[in-house]
Amino acid sequence: MQSEPVNLAGAVAQIQDYWDPHIVGELNGQHVKLAKVKGEFIWHHHENEDELFLVLKGVLHLEMRNRTVTLEEGDFFVVPKGVEHKPVAEDEVHLLMFEPASTLNTGNVRNERTVDRLRRI
Amino acid sequence: MQSEPVNLAGAVAQIQDYWDPHIVGELNGQHVKLAKVKGEFIWHHHENEDELFLVLKGVLHLEMRNRTVTLEEGDFFVVPKGVEHKPVAEDEVHLLMFEPASTLNTGNVRNERTVDRLRRI
Repeated sequence: MQSEPVNLAGAVAQIQDYWDPHIVGELNGQHVKLAKVKGEFIWHHHENEDELFLVLKGVLHLEMRNRTVTLEEGDFFVVPKGVEHKPVAEDEVHLLMFEPASTLNTGNVRNERTVDRLRRI
Repeated sequence: MQSEPVNLAGAVAQIQDYWDPHIVGELNGQHVKLAKVKGEFIWHHHENEDELFLVLKGVLHLEMRNRTVTLEEGDFFVVPKGVEHKPVAEDEVHLLMFEPASTLNTGNVRNERTVDRLRRI
């Protein structure tokens, strides 16, 4: 349960690695996560979870099989459950994500980029 | 279901009235809402819903019975279910809220500030 206010920029600054989402808030069975990303992630989908991406800094391309959505600072997009997507960031991007606590970062795929136990800030 | 990206500042700019939350996104039974607020709201609580407030612009005071939390731009706070709170904004504040779709803006109270049918952007 959140008991103190969280400053997004301050929290992102504590993240060291790319593609390593950190939990910064929890409510109603959902997590608020922050991540620094750069480069290409893997194609994956989430069977049961819609996933919200809000760009705090930088430019994120969300590739889907039939379209690519480009998000700049202050833009958000919801990837519906079941929709395959691949986040791509040419330069460093700071992201906020809202999604159910059950969500695995690599969705239906399990590989070296899977983070099972998320860190908290 | 969200099918196009939403720019937060652009969406807030479409809101006319204070204390009139608009739905801008929906995922996993939760709503993403935006609001412009100024002045004092009423004391209320939400029986079953935790409520996240993220300040996009301005300074929001979240008065609770035992403490007041002050949020500046980029700060968020989760008011746990059952906790009485009263948002206060001396000047105009732009807010993002994340909460279950079932959440009523005035919680356990029903008065002239209750908004039953939220607008969508």
